[in-house]
Amino acid sequence: MTSSIASDTVTGSPVRLQAVSAADQPEVTPALEELYRGFEQELLVPLWTEIGDLMPAHPRSRAVPHLWRWERLRALAAQAGEIVPVGRGGERRAIALANPSLGGRPFATPTLWAAIQYLMPGEDAPEHRHTQHAFRFVVEGEGVWTVVGRDPVAMRRGDFLPQAGWNMHAHHNATAEPMAWIDGLDIPFQYTSEAQFFEFGRDEISDAERITPERSRAERLWGHPGLRPVSAAPGSTGPGSPLLAYRWEHTDRALADQLALEAEGFAGTVGPGHAAVRFSDPATGADVLPTVRAEMHRVARGAETVPVKETGSSVYQVFDGSGTVTVGEKTWSVTRGDLFVVPSWQPFSVRSEAGATDSDSGALDLFRFSDSPIFEALRLDRTEVEGTTR
Amino acid sequence: MTSSIASDTVTGSPVRLQAVSAADQPEVTPALEELYRGFEQELLVPLWTEIGDLMPAHPRSRAVPHLWRWERLRALAAQAGEIVPVGRGGERRAIALANPSLGGRPFATPTLWAAIQYLMPGEDAPEHRHTQHAFRFVVEGEGVWTVVGRDPVAMRRGDFLPQAGWNMHAHHNATAEPMAWIDGLDIPFQYTSEAQFFEFGRDEISDAERITPERSRAERLWGHPGLRPVSAAPGSTGPGSPLLAYRWEHTDRALADQLALEAEGFAGTVGPGHAAVRFSDPATGADVLPTVRAEMHRVARGAETVPVKETGSSVYQVFDGSGTVTVGEKTWSVTRGDLFVVPSWQPFSVRSEAGATDSDSGALDLFRFSDSPIFEALRLDRTEVEGTTR
Amino acid sequence: MTSSIASDTVTGSPVRLQAVSAADQPEVTPALEELYRGFEQELLVPLWTEIGDLMPAHPRSRAVPHLWRWERLRALAAQAGEIVPVGRGGERRAIALANPSLGGRPFATPTLWAAIQYLMPGEDAPEHRHTQHAFRFVVEGEGVWTVVGRDPVAMRRGDFLPQAGWNMHAHHNATAEPMAWIDGLDIPFQYTSEAQFFEFGRDEISDAERITPERSRAERLWGHPGLRPVSAAPGSTGPGSPLLAYRWEHTDRALADQLALEAEGFAGTVGPGHAAVRFSDPATGADVLPTVRAEMHRVARGAETVPVKETGSSVYQVFDGSGTVTVGEKTWSVTRGDLFVVPSWQPFSVRSEAGATDSDSGALDLFRFSDSPIFEALRLDRTEVEGTTR
Amino acid sequence: MTSSIASDTVTGSPVRLQAVSAADQPEVTPALEELYRGFEQELLVPLWTEIGDLMPAHPRSRAVPHLWRWERLRALAAQAGEIVPVGRGGERRAIALANPSLGGRPFATPTLWAAIQYLMPGEDAPEHRHTQHAFRFVVEGEGVWTVVGRDPVAMRRGDFLPQAGWNMHAHHNATAEPMAWIDGLDIPFQYTSEAQFFEFGRDEISDAERITPERSRAERLWGHPGLRPVSAAPGSTGPGSPLLAYRWEHTDRALADQLALEAEGFAGTVGPGHAAVRFSDPATGADVLPTVRAEMHRVARGAETVPVKETGSSVYQVFDGSGTVTVGEKTWSVTRGDLFVVPSWQPFSVRSEAGATDSDSGALDLFRFSDSPIFEALRLDRTEVEGTTR
Repeated sequence: MTSSIASDTVTGSPVRLQAVSAADQPEVTPALEELYRGFEQELLVPLWTEIGDLMPAHPRSRAVPHLWRWERLRALAAQAGEIVPVGRGGERRAIALANPSLGGRPFATPTLWAAIQYLMPGEDAPEHRHTQHAFRFVVEGEGVWTVVGRDPVAMRRGDFLPQAGWNMHAHHNATAEPMAWIDGLDIPFQYTSEAQFFEFGRDEISDAERITPERSRAERLWGHPGLRPVSAAPGSTGPGSPLLAYRWEHTDRALADQLALEAEGFAGTVGPGHAAVRFSDPATGADVLPTVRAEMHRVARGAETVPVKETGSSVYQVFDGSGTVTVGEKTWSVTRGDLFVVPSWQPFSVRSEAGATDSDSGALDLFRFSDSPIFEALRLDRTEVEGTTR
Repeated sequence: MTSSIASDTVTGSPVRLQAVSAADQPEVTPALEELYRGFEQELLVPLWTEIGDLMPAHPRSRAVPHLWRWERLRALAAQAGEIVPVGRGGERRAIALANPSLGGRPFATPTLWAAIQYLMPGEDAPEHRHTQHAFRFVVEGEGVWTVVGRDPVAMRRGDFLPQAGWNMHAHHNATAEPMAWIDGLDIPFQYTSEAQFFEFGRDEISDAERITPERSRAERLWGHPGLRPVSAAPGSTGPGSPLLAYRWEHTDRALADQLALEAEGFAGTVGPGHAAVRFSDPATGADVLPTVRAEMHRVARGAETVPVKETGSSVYQVFDGSGTVTVGEKTWSVTRGDLFVVPSWQPFSVRSEAGATDSDSGALDLFRFSDSPIFEALRLDRTEVEGTTR
Repeated sequence: MTSSIASDTVTGSPVRLQAVSAADQPEVTPALEELYRGFEQELLVPLWTEIGDLMPAHPRSRAVPHLWRWERLRALAAQAGEIVPVGRGGERRAIALANPSLGGRPFATPTLWAAIQYLMPGEDAPEHRHTQHAFRFVVEGEGVWTVVGRDPVAMRRGDFLPQAGWNMHAHHNATAEPMAWIDGLDIPFQYTSEAQFFEFGRDEISDAERITPERSRAERLWGHPGLRPVSAAPGSTGPGSPLLAYRWEHTDRALADQLALEAEGFAGTVGPGHAAVRFSDPATGADVLPTVRAEMHRVARGAETVPVKETGSSVYQVFDGSGTVTVGEKTWSVTRGDLFVVPSWQPFSVRSEAGATDSDSGALDLFRFSDSPIFEALRLDRTEVEGTTR
Repeated sequence: MTSSIASDTVTGSPVRLQAVSAADQPEVTPALEELYRGFEQELLVPLWTEIGDLMPAHPRSRAVPHLWRWERLRALAAQAGEIVPVGRGGERRAIALANPSLGGRPFATPTLWAAIQYLMPGEDAPEHRHTQHAFRFVVEGEGVWTVVGRDPVAMRRGDFLPQAGWNMHAHHNATAEPMAWIDGLDIPFQYTSEAQFFEFGRDEISDAERITPERSRAERLWGHPGLRPVSAAPGSTGPGSPLLAYRWEHTDRALADQLALEAEGFAGTVGPGHAAVRFSDPATGADVLPTVRAEMHRVARGAETVPVKETGSSVYQVFDGSGTVTVGEKTWSVTRGDLFVVPSWQPFSVRSEAGATDSDSGALDLFRFSDSPIFEALRLDRTEVEGTTR
């Protein structure tokens, strides 16, 4: 079954219907062919030629599992750093993963954008805002500050920095070293649903925003466990988290705590040897962004997870350790920085394995982001763990 | 299933980047061209070549405003009734609107499906279920019963019949006349977000389901204003409305009431001469379906609405009366049954005008459905009424 | 206002502790007596002398089951109509049920107020508003209009009229007959939690509010099943229902439908022969008032309900038919108009029985209101059906 | 107007009505007196004799402002430690504040319980559970572990330990020193609303629960800022916070951060020199307990707050520093450990003042708990800041 219409809009009706001889199709007769010509003329398409593609028994993603090697990405980003200016026009030196079966679009999955962003010493990425919900995640390096609503936020290895739609933001590299990180956004989702707005901000951020504090104002207000400022009434924040940085020291400790609890015989992990935390909005406990879920997973040395299928897609980046990842029919050995996608309803599992570049613990740490909040908000989420639907 | 760039995957990378000379693009140099070859090889796409399309200042829909004439639709549907069987395979004799700029896909807008469905005397459309949220709306005729969860629901002119995802349903024409109606679903949205499941039901519905009651069981339980059955605990219904039919007599009266209140000097209409009701879930007050909003609008004779822009798209069908509709740069005279689409962020306004086929009142009644619940759930909704953003 | 221990504050400490000899109390010694004198002096009370009363194994209500006969209430109300003026000062000619074990306070239960209100021909009850959430229920008669926010609302047998806190309201009797009805409010709850505000309105309502329309404006906007006015954005109404009258014809039909469905073999009733509807806010599906639940129950001739215990208390009024009611250790024969209370965690059951004053159907119709929304909002609700806790 | 009926239930009807001569009361006539006899006989009370008390223009609390000195409380608690055993029967060595105008009941306010609890070296308070929502707050000392659901939780100066209803809990003093702390519960609220259940647990906790870890399992799972364990699905926790301890080091730092932000010119404090954090449920962002709000306030040296009136009542304990507190018409100098109550709608303000026992910073730290969640859940909350109602 093919959709196959492409660019016929030039030569006539964009609708092209071909009466075909098939078990589940009406018999090809002159009457049918005349009917199809009528459909084309009126810009109509019958369900019966499309139903297999449009209404499959389960999600069959247009995306495919794919792996990008961090080493190659970083090298190309560094090359871009030398020859492509940052600034108005492109706004950012961001280079996006393009899923091989999504038509060459810069879409990691049908809903998610994932890109490496690169900033040279002393460079600024200018201020702008957009309705696309975004975050940064740092797999290596430090020295860039993201300035969100005039609040400078440091970026260091392991930090997660969410940025809900329509907040003005800029980046500046305050050091003598280039720095790379990962951007995640819901650009493809907003592109297909057509909700996006964009605005330029100031050409230059002020000197006051060029300071480089250890902790952002957001962290000083919202980064204390279980404590909220009384000055922020419930419902007054958002959409999205008011906490602009989730620091690695907390994430690391939370994961270590879960594995230690498991070792002591208590609940807390997702499965044996599999710890995981979700970055959440401290004002609501909900996902950190309205359309994007972000999590850090730690799989203990030698442990492996059971295959899980979920509606919606994910992008993973290996933060530390090495292991073997299986997505659908693909299996890869992965190591620090590598990125891969899990399309909708493809079974996913991972095994942690000792490797040359291993961390001390031998655990495999995986950063994950997904479009799950979209599915849950619309009651379209479904999960199957080794044959058990939830 | 194949995607539209299938062939590229055979001959090489699906990513094709062309270094172009433009004000906001990096200078074309051998180094840039080499960089772009590296991107292609690694399946990467830079933001700076795509940002204008992906991140526009405001939504620029890939869909265009378009009008389909009911007279032509019905004639083609009747023709299909003669030669295309209903049943397993196609499952339904449904013929969908294909927006002329969406590549020939049966998508009225990037998120919404709208089709005319046609059932011959005595015919059955077999039982199935799917996660796609659906409804029927009847612009003319009667005689078909939709059987949802074994509950037969009559369909008559003006009735609105929602059907949340994953409910088994069938249709049967209990009369000696063919009948046509409109189906609305979120098929394109679920197609692009990849959430869809589908299951066949029984091949034949039972005799007990072939009875033709005036009121469905759903209406007898949930169709009393402000009253809910105590047997249904809050939270036990849904997703979507447990009320399976919204009858025209109630909709008509509610609209008439609003205009009468306005005439008496009281609030209630949306604007001068413009009454509107939203079909809602009586168990929650929310939209009737998680992804689809449905409303009936009545514009009094001679009245006109102010242009409104909204994120997300709508499909309208003229239920009664005639008038002039303006969507973006298109203006059409419309009359009973005509269907048209309003793409995201295109200004929409309507004027009611006396015409040859007018109803007694001279009012223009418009059925509307949209994807607004998606945008509201994800905090992406925005509305502009003649320059005032809300 | 004085509290019941006013006098103690004059002569000494309001705290009086007596060291007693008991199995679960500390041994009475001079040291203990000295300790208790210290407690008294510092206004302290030890938990160990109070725990049995304060923290019982299950709710032991201070209220007792009690029955009030409608015949006597109406006669006394009529007598009051002759000699007690309505108007500023008393504001209303309302006479409240006083649970015999609540200290003579006009409290039907620890949280609920129930009163008969009586208006003579041509009389007005003046306009005021208060934070207490209120409703009217009409067991007999008609001819009074309640004017809520200048919207006149007719009152007739079987009608339920909610009125959320802080809405201005007045009543006027537009006929030549006196009329009685029931008021329900959360006065005791707001009295003990100390949340109440009160304001006088205009001394006289206007002529425009003295009209006597069949349907109120509220009903014309909100009284259509499953339909909401688009002009009222979600979240813009409330607290409490915007629908100011729930008419008997709808309630009666909904109950009859449930019993008919049961007879046809379908779900819908609460239990065998036991139909029930809850008055709900059409804008949210939630309880009609933030602190008060209201329902109409119909028990078919000869049917009986299983004993149920619930946290929180209820007041019932027999609307039609006759039967036998059991509350805790009390059993009464009841008939039209009779009122009784079910204290917290007292088992309640009812049997419908043919009686002299029976309705045609022989069913027993019971109007009920309760404080359940308070318990559910605070996660304190618990229910036990014949030994099964839910 | 007096309510004043008390224990007349022995001698006859609990209702006693006296016809009185007053401007707003009906004229005293034999007919009125006969009517009132009829009311008494039928257990009825007219609104017109009660309205001033029941429906005041604004809340007039039965409670009065009152102050308890910590020094005296601790001394009496220590005395009780010597002579009153802990264990089954009393269950706890808890001594409650009794508001002087609440009839000698152990109620700090009409809804809140506040008590000092005292545990001798090596003592255990046995395991039990109850629907009353509770917390502990430690103004001085350490060495006791609260065991909640078998999870031992350390208690140290400044720590806040919430414990939602129906969780089994015990306490044990693992040291050679006695320890005192404050218990807060909603006992009076549940007493008047009659929702309370109680169950004994095991007589002895196990050895495994006698370990004395620095951090509880709850903290290891939920005590990381903005991070939630993926193993705990949204909605799977509660009611109330899964985080069983909020440590002083975090609270102190959050308050210091707010004042530092203010000094730098940024928002974050409630008012000038007035920092405040709310203890919140990390799974939802809501109040830490369904019926109880808990906060820590810091008023910088020399700063003072504006008078605020709120529906509902609060109990405060001075955690550190000294100052002057004004509640209604009362003004007190307060210092570490002192407790006082703010009844509903009484204006409250505080000024920080240097005193002999001052902390280094000179700031006044106030722990507060209140019944605000009850009012907000039921839409009964109202606040007035110096004449401005919110």
